[in-house]
Amino acid sequence: MNVIVGQSGGPTAVINASLAGVYEAAKKAGAAHVYGMKNGIMGVLEDNLLDLDEILSAPGKVELLKRTPSSDLGSCRYKLKSAEQNPADYQKIFSVLQKRAIDCFFYIGGNDSMDTISKLSAYGKEIGSPIRFVGIPKTVDNDLMVTDHTPGYGSAAKFVATTLKEVICDSTVYDIKSLTIVEIMGRNAGWLTAASALAKCEDCDGVDMIFLPEVPFDLDGFVAKIAEKQKVKGNLIIAVSESLKVADGRYVCELADSAQEEDSFGHKRLTGTARFLADECTKRLGVKARAIELSTLQRCASHLASLTDVNEAYQAGEAAVQAAVNGQSCVAVVLVRGANAPYRCETDIVAVEKLANHEKCIPLEWIDVENAMMKEEFIAYAKPLIQGELIPIYKDGLPCHLCKK
Amino acid sequence: MNVIVGQSGGPTAVINASLAGVYEAAKKAGAAHVYGMKNGIMGVLEDNLLDLDEILSAPGKVELLKRTPSSDLGSCRYKLKSAEQNPADYQKIFSVLQKRAIDCFFYIGGNDSMDTISKLSAYGKEIGSPIRFVGIPKTVDNDLMVTDHTPGYGSAAKFVATTLKEVICDSTVYDIKSLTIVEIMGRNAGWLTAASALAKCEDCDGVDMIFLPEVPFDLDGFVAKIAEKQKVKGNLIIAVSESLKVADGRYVCELADSAQEEDSFGHKRLTGTARFLADECTKRLGVKARAIELSTLQRCASHLASLTDVNEAYQAGEAAVQAAVNGQSCVAVVLVRGANAPYRCETDIVAVEKLANHEKCIPLEWIDVENAMMKEEFIAYAKPLIQGELIPIYKDGLPCHLCKK
Repeated sequence: MNVIVGQSGGPTAVINASLAGVYEAAKKAGAAHVYGMKNGIMGVLEDNLLDLDEILSAPGKVELLKRTPSSDLGSCRYKLKSAEQNPADYQKIFSVLQKRAIDCFFYIGGNDSMDTISKLSAYGKEIGSPIRFVGIPKTVDNDLMVTDHTPGYGSAAKFVATTLKEVICDSTVYDIKSLTIVEIMGRNAGWLTAASALAKCEDCDGVDMIFLPEVPFDLDGFVAKIAEKQKVKGNLIIAVSESLKVADGRYVCELADSAQEEDSFGHKRLTGTARFLADECTKRLGVKARAIELSTLQRCASHLASLTDVNEAYQAGEAAVQAAVNGQSCVAVVLVRGANAPYRCETDIVAVEKLANHEKCIPLEWIDVENAMMKEEFIAYAKPLIQGELIPIYKDGLPCHLCKK
Repeated sequence: MNVIVGQSGGPTAVINASLAGVYEAAKKAGAAHVYGMKNGIMGVLEDNLLDLDEILSAPGKVELLKRTPSSDLGSCRYKLKSAEQNPADYQKIFSVLQKRAIDCFFYIGGNDSMDTISKLSAYGKEIGSPIRFVGIPKTVDNDLMVTDHTPGYGSAAKFVATTLKEVICDSTVYDIKSLTIVEIMGRNAGWLTAASALAKCEDCDGVDMIFLPEVPFDLDGFVAKIAEKQKVKGNLIIAVSESLKVADGRYVCELADSAQEEDSFGHKRLTGTARFLADECTKRLGVKARAIELSTLQRCASHLASLTDVNEAYQAGEAAVQAAVNGQSCVAVVLVRGANAPYRCETDIVAVEKLANHEKCIPLEWIDVENAMMKEEFIAYAKPLIQGELIPIYKDGLPCHLCKK
């Protein structure tokens, strides 16, 4: 049996734990070769593959891989067109897979990657290929359908909550009125921003308000809420999603003069929301306001990874191999929660179409819109996902990663 | 013996370790009361003092304090005027100190705080007060004179280096030309930005260039250097100081249209340097560019504190108490390095005037200006300061802090 595995889309702190799970499970299942795609499907199209034995078979390498953030194999944002539109891509991919005598194809990614799995499975079926295709979900955005949550989310949520606890200590140190607005990732779903609610615990009052893309944003209402709150509490810490939208559909960051242009690739840059809101509050309320963007730190902080998340990401990789060995194809691994307390979660296998090209937002009934806060249902859902630590292996003062040199 | 201690200026990850050192050494020296100033000297002016026994005497509290970021007693930015200009402040302060029968006054802070110690000592001497005044240095900026380095710097440097290792993993994941510009704190000195050089190690290529305020910034040269580098390496990661200045003395962040205004308090906001530079590179080179501001995270990330730094901060607190017990006043603790390898460092006591109101920049001979990189001398200096970890005490998935509720 030969196996190939790739990583696609935006990195997470635990996408390599899924890679580790695939590698070890495939070896255990007797795989002769486990190939890695260099930069996702691009690596197959260019026949740019790695033999993972060379990278991972030495003692301790898999443990380092699990502690290495981002996609160790590299990533891509290549959207595979349909076989009708671009047959050459499919012919090329299947010729490379056949040349290497691949039996199982694993792709770790978000909903675009699930779409890739779906298309390749369908094409393979049509040409009578026996190759099995299995998707393994990942995204810090937690916006995939069907799965209870996605590997990657728990660690990003743990980083957000930990960092906010520290920022709250920092931001409340002066006895003056001040406002700290923290911008958190999530393209159309507020899952990661909502994780800011987890900062509230025995020794921390938590953030004061949370604004999510699930709720149309009202700038006047936002400023009014802050003015109201500051009557009783001088130092406020507010969490906002990078993808807040006003009622007419424009992103809040587009309201700022300086943010109106697109970048040179024509993408709307979802950044500047916090800066814009901080400036508005300073202008309208005369209050000192600081904007903090957690930026890519929130998705790559493997030194703060959630052990629960690392383990589930690894198990998702294992489950994908098991499914392929069992002959399943055109499927994806999902996580199914048994209970919150004590937390239990298992993997399951579903048709990949169920995950492809859809986004899952936070249920509106988990959001206390009036108080701009998460309800207990969300806390109960999210808290188990940040439990446990995978303590880094430190050398010379810094966490070690799998060496790419 | 009664003792009072305060914290002032911007927070660090280990300023509370110095507080712990003062508290435990004072108790050991037989102090009946150890008072904490609520929000620095403001707490004395308003007679708003805490009895630290109530907060710290229970088992485990000091260990939690050492792991709690930011100034647990609160801070202030109150600049004490001279006794001639504002005698009322001095009268008020000394009446409060006398009421509490204070023998020793400790102030943990940067160069402004050392100025406060200097002024209070001088006034005390004039009125024949026996109170001893001792300063304990702290600042992530590492810009204090005389002392080899300042408590707070090592932990911030460790955060910067660790985060950059992770950001480098994240930023190099796509096989495209891209630019990541990371903005790091430091008002007029580049010490913390220079710490980005520590990311380079066995398993990481490190950042590609470093731009410091010690060297006048040339925008055209900056863009040219990037264009040149990208001919051989697509993904570049550049560290820049928030306080880069062009030759005419303007901050780089002031060059951006949107950053020209001051905030409502009349302070120039040293933020937006990375965003401005990223935008310039996109405009001029057509390259995809991301700006990341490490913001206050770099000064409050106690979950990544350097054990060396924590221990030295604690020892600085102890040494201050020892100096006061020995009858010294109008002095400050400094750190004196014995050797780099193996690293040895001791505390010493110097006249506080030597530290007050001066800034120490990086020696120019430690900077490779041509290649925008740090020389080996800097690495040898900075590396010992990030060694060791004070692993957080985790509860329910998050690091515990001393409870302020």
